[in-house]
Amino acid sequence: MLKSKLFKIALSNRTRRSPFFDATVADGLEGISIYNHMVMPIWYNSSLVDYWNIVKNVTMWDVAFERQVEITGPDAFKLVTLLSPRNISKMQVGQCKYVPILDEDGGILNDPVLLRLGDNHFWLSIADSDLLLWAKGVAYGQGFDVDIIEPDVSPLAIQGPNWLPVAENLFGDWIKDLKFFHFREINLGDIPLVVARSGWSKQGGLELYLRDGSKGSELWDRVKQAGKEYDIKPATPSTIERIEGGLLSYGNDMTSEDTPYHVGLGKYCHPNQKADFIGKAALQRIQTEGVDRHLTGVVLHEEEWLYTEGWWPLYRDGIRVGDVRSAVHSPRLERNIGLAMIENDSAEPNTTLSAKTPLGFVDCTVTSIPFIEGKHQHD
Amino acid sequence: MLKSKLFKIALSNRTRRSPFFDATVADGLEGISIYNHMVMPIWYNSSLVDYWNIVKNVTMWDVAFERQVEITGPDAFKLVTLLSPRNISKMQVGQCKYVPILDEDGGILNDPVLLRLGDNHFWLSIADSDLLLWAKGVAYGQGFDVDIIEPDVSPLAIQGPNWLPVAENLFGDWIKDLKFFHFREINLGDIPLVVARSGWSKQGGLELYLRDGSKGSELWDRVKQAGKEYDIKPATPSTIERIEGGLLSYGNDMTSEDTPYHVGLGKYCHPNQKADFIGKAALQRIQTEGVDRHLTGVVLHEEEWLYTEGWWPLYRDGIRVGDVRSAVHSPRLERNIGLAMIENDSAEPNTTLSAKTPLGFVDCTVTSIPFIEGKHQHD
Repeated sequence: MLKSKLFKIALSNRTRRSPFFDATVADGLEGISIYNHMVMPIWYNSSLVDYWNIVKNVTMWDVAFERQVEITGPDAFKLVTLLSPRNISKMQVGQCKYVPILDEDGGILNDPVLLRLGDNHFWLSIADSDLLLWAKGVAYGQGFDVDIIEPDVSPLAIQGPNWLPVAENLFGDWIKDLKFFHFREINLGDIPLVVARSGWSKQGGLELYLRDGSKGSELWDRVKQAGKEYDIKPATPSTIERIEGGLLSYGNDMTSEDTPYHVGLGKYCHPNQKADFIGKAALQRIQTEGVDRHLTGVVLHEEEWLYTEGWWPLYRDGIRVGDVRSAVHSPRLERNIGLAMIENDSAEPNTTLSAKTPLGFVDCTVTSIPFIEGKHQHD
Repeated sequence: MLKSKLFKIALSNRTRRSPFFDATVADGLEGISIYNHMVMPIWYNSSLVDYWNIVKNVTMWDVAFERQVEITGPDAFKLVTLLSPRNISKMQVGQCKYVPILDEDGGILNDPVLLRLGDNHFWLSIADSDLLLWAKGVAYGQGFDVDIIEPDVSPLAIQGPNWLPVAENLFGDWIKDLKFFHFREINLGDIPLVVARSGWSKQGGLELYLRDGSKGSELWDRVKQAGKEYDIKPATPSTIERIEGGLLSYGNDMTSEDTPYHVGLGKYCHPNQKADFIGKAALQRIQTEGVDRHLTGVVLHEEEWLYTEGWWPLYRDGIRVGDVRSAVHSPRLERNIGLAMIENDSAEPNTTLSAKTPLGFVDCTVTSIPFIEGKHQHD
């Protein structure tokens, strides 16, 4: 396997700990990153063991680093409409929607899941950038009457094909009827939750948004107990599983230099909707003109197991035509796979390219994504 | 010493590497954190060895994680004026100023150093939050004609009492005349730099803002060569040195819940200036009403060497009166010291308090800050 240096990390208050932190450490957390100024668990046993637990059975994840930007007040709907390239005019209370957030040029600033808790009460469950500052800045400039805060809300995910019996153990019969990308506000004993049928995998499951940080260990233990007979294991969002399934990671596969049309997120944008939103003119222009490059898949023909820590340049006949943005070894496909941004002319499936990796040049074949179809799509 | 678990961290593209990364790894970098979505070196040999090199001699730091928010365009000065509670009406090209950036309530969003490169050309050299999103959001809402980007600029700091001979070796004679918190744009051979007399220590030195990321190793080597005869060592911003000197760390000692008046930064704010700025009304109100708590120092009476990973509650006669926000063992003072937010009534020097630490309750004595006066102040 392509080995890289494993650094040590020291924590401080700036790298905040989640309400589940003590429980995750007790359960053997070994590897972390930092995400939204918070400790992000990234492996327990090993990325590989964690991966098999996710795709074959059921796992529980501390994803408190998915912070919420809460928007309330008389102009909340107006602000969220302005921020959202997706048409949310008919969004119901109790619904979630995946909504890329754009700047005026259509560049992606974050790709949160939007939850509507009330007519003028929203959460943006964010990826790794301070979207709160964008929302506050826009609201200030527009003079909107809103409150924008990071509330005491910390998600715990249950993910894996066997998530349902664990969820039924926890919540009872009604949970099986909760529709995909819908949520319900409930109390589990004295633990206040928003329970959503969502999660950053293609294996199915729930996200339990804990609304009282003092009850982190209690919720962790309740989920663990409910999952005991199904052999639930702690795990984390899996880079392997999400690349197999074609789920994008902000900061890895896309940045503010990319628009939704460059990374396959055009279907979540409605540039011709009636409402005005930030980036509308840019998206209308790009929709007409088209893009010159786009994100797609590559298979990397190399026996060693690969893992990207940065982008790898891609060449065709010696000419640079793009970058591999994220690559891993897929245990289910038994090959190295990656997500790559490639100029249209060289992005046709079966095109042969060459990636400059730390192991030297590796031949690649362009392919469509996802690599593995999941029955649980993003919405 | 109070020991805590050292986690491993795996890198990805989301945790970007600096232009100096390869050079720092070659020179023995061991411990890192993540800051502004970037790898932040935090120790080489050990925090203690690095500290003594900083306070006794001279060191070089990769501080590329101090990202720049570049603001240009016809309305650049107008926008920066609106963002700045400090009066910048007479700021000269070539000057740096330390400027807390506030929201409407006076809450601190970041505490960058502002550099003026032209009449309408500014850099905000930021602490750990995405201030670019705040600036862009405000500019969007106000309809300002500006460009706001993160340019290819990465600072390398030379810090320590013996910084000057190294700087003279590098740049020649003129460097000794560069005034504190002023900068000059130069080329070092073919390496484009902004050289500023600044840095996040009280030991004196420079920050070299590298303006071409492809020349990171080259600049690192030039500095290393110039410092060889003075025994320059790689190091990092030192938590010990900065607490001794009373330098604040955003996210550790202050958050958006604090205003400048709570954390001793009132002197950098001019709420009665003619220009309007975000937070003006709030600062005027707080200036009149006063604050009920403020940041000051505590000495912690405990033999074991202490190190905070989170805030420690502070009690007086059993009543909660504040928090220790950052604490370390000071090798020069041979005692544990900390920065604490304390209710005014209990924040008088020599007041005895009790801090709840992982080692149990520890007696504290309130004291003024800084603990050690430096001749090089922030400006």
